[in-house]
Amino acid sequence: MISFCQFGAGRIGQIHAANIAQNPKARLKTVVDVSAGAAKALAERYGASVGDPKTALADPGIDAVLIASSTDTHADLVEAAARAGKPVLCEKPLDLDRKRAQACLDVATKAGIPLMLGFNRRFDPNFATLHKQLRDGRIGRLELLAITSRDPGPPPLDYVKVSGGLFRDMMIHDFDMARWLLAEEPVAVMAAASSLVDAGIGNLGDVDTAVVTLKTASGALCQISNSRRATYGYDQRIEALGSKGMLRAGNVLESTVEFSGADGIVGEKPLHFFLERYAAAYRHELDHFIDALENRRTPMVTGVDGVRALALAEAALEGSKTGRAVTL
Amino acid sequence: MISFCQFGAGRIGQIHAANIAQNPKARLKTVVDVSAGAAKALAERYGASVGDPKTALADPGIDAVLIASSTDTHADLVEAAARAGKPVLCEKPLDLDRKRAQACLDVATKAGIPLMLGFNRRFDPNFATLHKQLRDGRIGRLELLAITSRDPGPPPLDYVKVSGGLFRDMMIHDFDMARWLLAEEPVAVMAAASSLVDAGIGNLGDVDTAVVTLKTASGALCQISNSRRATYGYDQRIEALGSKGMLRAGNVLESTVEFSGADGIVGEKPLHFFLERYAAAYRHELDHFIDALENRRTPMVTGVDGVRALALAEAALEGSKTGRAVTL
Amino acid sequence: MISFCQFGAGRIGQIHAANIAQNPKARLKTVVDVSAGAAKALAERYGASVGDPKTALADPGIDAVLIASSTDTHADLVEAAARAGKPVLCEKPLDLDRKRAQACLDVATKAGIPLMLGFNRRFDPNFATLHKQLRDGRIGRLELLAITSRDPGPPPLDYVKVSGGLFRDMMIHDFDMARWLLAEEPVAVMAAASSLVDAGIGNLGDVDTAVVTLKTASGALCQISNSRRATYGYDQRIEALGSKGMLRAGNVLESTVEFSGADGIVGEKPLHFFLERYAAAYRHELDHFIDALENRRTPMVTGVDGVRALALAEAALEGSKTGRAVTL
Amino acid sequence: MISFCQFGAGRIGQIHAANIAQNPKARLKTVVDVSAGAAKALAERYGASVGDPKTALADPGIDAVLIASSTDTHADLVEAAARAGKPVLCEKPLDLDRKRAQACLDVATKAGIPLMLGFNRRFDPNFATLHKQLRDGRIGRLELLAITSRDPGPPPLDYVKVSGGLFRDMMIHDFDMARWLLAEEPVAVMAAASSLVDAGIGNLGDVDTAVVTLKTASGALCQISNSRRATYGYDQRIEALGSKGMLRAGNVLESTVEFSGADGIVGEKPLHFFLERYAAAYRHELDHFIDALENRRTPMVTGVDGVRALALAEAALEGSKTGRAVTL
Repeated sequence: MISFCQFGAGRIGQIHAANIAQNPKARLKTVVDVSAGAAKALAERYGASVGDPKTALADPGIDAVLIASSTDTHADLVEAAARAGKPVLCEKPLDLDRKRAQACLDVATKAGIPLMLGFNRRFDPNFATLHKQLRDGRIGRLELLAITSRDPGPPPLDYVKVSGGLFRDMMIHDFDMARWLLAEEPVAVMAAASSLVDAGIGNLGDVDTAVVTLKTASGALCQISNSRRATYGYDQRIEALGSKGMLRAGNVLESTVEFSGADGIVGEKPLHFFLERYAAAYRHELDHFIDALENRRTPMVTGVDGVRALALAEAALEGSKTGRAVTL
Repeated sequence: MISFCQFGAGRIGQIHAANIAQNPKARLKTVVDVSAGAAKALAERYGASVGDPKTALADPGIDAVLIASSTDTHADLVEAAARAGKPVLCEKPLDLDRKRAQACLDVATKAGIPLMLGFNRRFDPNFATLHKQLRDGRIGRLELLAITSRDPGPPPLDYVKVSGGLFRDMMIHDFDMARWLLAEEPVAVMAAASSLVDAGIGNLGDVDTAVVTLKTASGALCQISNSRRATYGYDQRIEALGSKGMLRAGNVLESTVEFSGADGIVGEKPLHFFLERYAAAYRHELDHFIDALENRRTPMVTGVDGVRALALAEAALEGSKTGRAVTL
Repeated sequence: MISFCQFGAGRIGQIHAANIAQNPKARLKTVVDVSAGAAKALAERYGASVGDPKTALADPGIDAVLIASSTDTHADLVEAAARAGKPVLCEKPLDLDRKRAQACLDVATKAGIPLMLGFNRRFDPNFATLHKQLRDGRIGRLELLAITSRDPGPPPLDYVKVSGGLFRDMMIHDFDMARWLLAEEPVAVMAAASSLVDAGIGNLGDVDTAVVTLKTASGALCQISNSRRATYGYDQRIEALGSKGMLRAGNVLESTVEFSGADGIVGEKPLHFFLERYAAAYRHELDHFIDALENRRTPMVTGVDGVRALALAEAALEGSKTGRAVTL
Repeated sequence: MISFCQFGAGRIGQIHAANIAQNPKARLKTVVDVSAGAAKALAERYGASVGDPKTALADPGIDAVLIASSTDTHADLVEAAARAGKPVLCEKPLDLDRKRAQACLDVATKAGIPLMLGFNRRFDPNFATLHKQLRDGRIGRLELLAITSRDPGPPPLDYVKVSGGLFRDMMIHDFDMARWLLAEEPVAVMAAASSLVDAGIGNLGDVDTAVVTLKTASGALCQISNSRRATYGYDQRIEALGSKGMLRAGNVLESTVEFSGADGIVGEKPLHFFLERYAAAYRHELDHFIDALENRRTPMVTGVDGVRALALAEAALEGSKTGRAVTL
């Protein structure tokens, strides 16, 4: 039985707490949040207690730490947990600044703690099936990868301001998927971006529509397409072309119901919200972390992956401004 | 908080127990099973105790009874629960014999207890969406209904012997779906059936492949197609044609991954097993029962529905032998 | 080079004439029609001359006769062509009366002429592919067949009056498909029908919505679903379940374009009109007839098929009234 | 009636000749080919005569010229036709060298002849439907365009040598589609390319796998994906995301038949060969040219489009080598 201390009792924290509860090998012991009320509500729901960082990390009854607090607290909390010798599952990113992220990772590495980063999409059953078939050689050598990732609508400008920008905040997931699927590091990044969806985003110096091309040393190519707006819902697709065929993972629809009428054949939209779309992914991610701890194995996605995805995001941001391929 | 006594700790009982556990308004208090070991294992998993029928039904701390034991115990247990004044959620059927089922229903009605029957498919999110759109008038008046229901493979002959036969055991679900979707009672039943899949089934006097036509007083027609074998998985589809269009609910696939190669474009199969396919349906069914109890409303599907579906099954069985339409 | 005399210069006649023109082994020599204007227009378009039945059938330069005139002229024209020793491709049916059709067939058989009947759907590339895969054993033994056939909208009542009724006029195509795909004669027919679409059709004693079940000696079952109205277009689908899998042939859509928006994912409708939907089928049908003549082989579909499909239509009509299975 | 002189009696010439034959407003009068045998065979099939360039272009009975000869003859023939005052439909490209193409275009412009270039994909019914809906505003403002274009297999190396390279030979079609759909000229081109499919192609200094990003002045982005190999057939898809939704045009499949079995649900592959896939497009292209001549309207796609697409191809080629965005 692994007892968790969880930092963060907000929207994503509630998801993680429910997933801890459903895993027979885990329990939520302590909840820490800047809002005492949020911490208390979540703690009560799962029979946990409310704690403070210092005491919680010093508690020998705590076996693992889950960090789901605000982005700017991640690096400090990871370091504190590392110093306390506690394994960590941290929501992405470690930090929006790559140097800070690297420093944090160095602390964790030195401390020798398992540090898993919450790139949840790797645990989506559809993408995981595609990945497995790719690794099993179903399409031979991977030559062209295409990742489409579009949000149903733009976030509030207050969020945009602190988000780190589209490349670091949104496309970071796609960079991680690309690295995971390519199984090879990109050596060149080319990017183009626009502000088309929301003028407010452009006024903040950010973009809302962006495409990136990655190239690996072996010549494999990857195209990423991002938009902050898809009127038909959360659009999350992957297509991989190889020497023996193509694999595609499509959207997950609201239901299988289809209406045929005078205007055509109308199928349901993709699931609208990332928490619904990736509900199984969050659960599998936590189960994987617990399995890794129990079996003393390195988790599938670590702080290193976080730093490398961030390096790609920075390269894309730079390339989108200069129009040049950025070499890594 | 509704405290349940559950009869049956087998395969389907484990599903129900897990669903009770995930509903914040319910808890499993007592488990009863002919196998002491099975009862103990399930009770321990959810912090319940093992009980015997008499004591459990007399326990004032029990608010509701869930019957998931073997079919031949259903009617007796429903009657015992009714006499104890406990609301019941009973797996289908009340009894394979229509007279016995009716007698049991009479006892429950007289006792005034809520009696919900486990026709789980009404709670499948896809079929529920189709039903809602039908009721909302999206296709106008319903004229032609087609229900396809095929098992991945035939059950063991030991099960076939006690199953009551394909019409009572398997097509009974489709009769319930037909009544629910038609919103009108069938007045005529025509059936044709064969033993094509497994000669052993034919030797037992049962069939494994069957089609039925239902006709309502208003002239709406319904076609049902059953087979005990579909090599591609559990095939569960509904198609409804109306004056303004058509609604279809398709199969739920194992994932959205699709492979394109020299042999064609290969999508995943439907989910193979009914417990996977209807996992959400079982959960929603239980949630519905709990909501009905809390709000003192009649559950959507009652013992009356069970008796009526059984009457259709008997008519189909008769018709499949005589070749005549059976009038109801 | 096969020189055709064609009877009928109406809508379907124009299709046949164009198909004769595109086949490098055939030419249209003579056109006969009760409307002198229609005959002249069609003849001019393809460099043919206008003729009368007697002269045309006596013309030694005519190698084959194509009958696309009104239904009530078919049997007489087939017999006249047979007496003149000319091979015939006749639009279905030979006659709406089975005895008359049989008598006509007897004349043709006695004369020894090739007589092909225009059951065009056998030549649809999609259905032909399904048929081929079925015959090649892809799904093993055929156990359940489902044929869906729905018109976009009901025909004018003037047509309904002389049509012979839904079973003889519309479902006759499905009876032919069933016989062709089952590769075995049905031994029992069960039918149910209603007038739901157009009260005028009911007033004429006809039906507009009908379902039929066929059973063969080996126990294979077939379900047919007909409606005179499908708001989404011409609905023509086949599904075949066998011991090793299922084959389905779906509708042909107006284009591959799909729109994703706030109301769902909207695909195009099926092609609306039978002449569009079966354009390739009509062309392949004629090519097949010409090949059969050139290679002195019996065409794939003959007058015998016409009489047998008519027998099924009559049985279904009777069964829809009595509610009894009609044995053949 | 428009009388054509056609240059080229090879594979693509045969398609054009058949399309001239089926158009009631046109006829093939003269065929010119370097192979006397090929010219004769084609001429005989359609009742045309064999000619030589000089005589044919001087023939006052020739109303239009169709150029389907080898690429290196296009520019000279267009200029000769221009000087003779004959309207031209020329297979793409005018020339592989942009300066030569521009010079040729200048001659045609000065002569004032209609010059249509054979970018056949604009006339594909699926892409034309997508284009129409885009122009009709169905998805609002176009923000992201994705064009996927993959050949079933690489061409022979002898062809590759004279092809002008992937960007000029293959992606040129996608550049034309992009310009047509964006309705705005790209101002920047970024490209990345590899030789992954066939080492022989790489040895010739060409690539077989390439991706390009285009950006317009208004900020719209377009991604193009090309490969010389798709084991599942000819892959031709377009996806357009706009402010109000998304439009997609998918592949055209060999039939609608789908097989469900133990390995999944297997649909048919895309049509394998470009002549099959674009059969309707070639026909509509010719019909459009004839309509344009008859109605004295400028054809939808002219030599200007050819030169502009070539400029994009050259920019992409340069960018794929330098890694820099090329500004236009």
